[in-house]
Amino acid sequence: MRTIHLQETAEFKEGAMNRYFLVENSPNFKIINFNLDAGVTFPVHAHDLDGELSILVLEGEGYFLGANETEIPAATGDILISQIREPHGVKAVSRMRILVTITPPI
Amino acid sequence: MRTIHLQETAEFKEGAMNRYFLVENSPNFKIINFNLDAGVTFPVHAHDLDGELSILVLEGEGYFLGANETEIPAATGDILISQIREPHGVKAVSRMRILVTITPPI
Repeated sequence: MRTIHLQETAEFKEGAMNRYFLVENSPNFKIINFNLDAGVTFPVHAHDLDGELSILVLEGEGYFLGANETEIPAATGDILISQIREPHGVKAVSRMRILVTITPPI
Repeated sequence: MRTIHLQETAEFKEGAMNRYFLVENSPNFKIINFNLDAGVTFPVHAHDLDGELSILVLEGEGYFLGANETEIPAATGDILISQIREPHGVKAVSRMRILVTITPPI
């Protein structure tokens, strides 16, 4: 049992890139905190694997991205549930802190 | 792919009980949003099963609870990682909204 303070990992890298912090990586799940600077896009991607993921917006505003240029408004407290093989991504309008949980871990 | 607005499930039940909302329940993971009124304790418990869980504090302050009366301060943005078979619980000081992710789902 251990605790991580995600407020303490609220660091951003200016411009196009984002910082990430591996919260957990076990045989059960992988949990990653990504911090996207304003205007940054986490490109739409997918893996041809069984499994599922969630993307929770810890803070900020933007869009969840999906297949066929789908854009779903995403703000603090919104969570996306997606199959790993479904196209998914995130576009940050403000700075965005997101928490991604993937199971089984890839 | 679907989105849930956890701000919209920020409902509380006065006193000793809490409300919960099943965000996802699939063969991959179970995601549950619990809302604890101030002063409410989610009692320490454990299951003798392989697997792991995370408890993220969406909003509020209190403690993560563990074995032997362990109390770990827990505030917005803090996340607990625990084996399912490790004793775990939550004590709310203010109103607390928490998001529990369990894999494999139980």
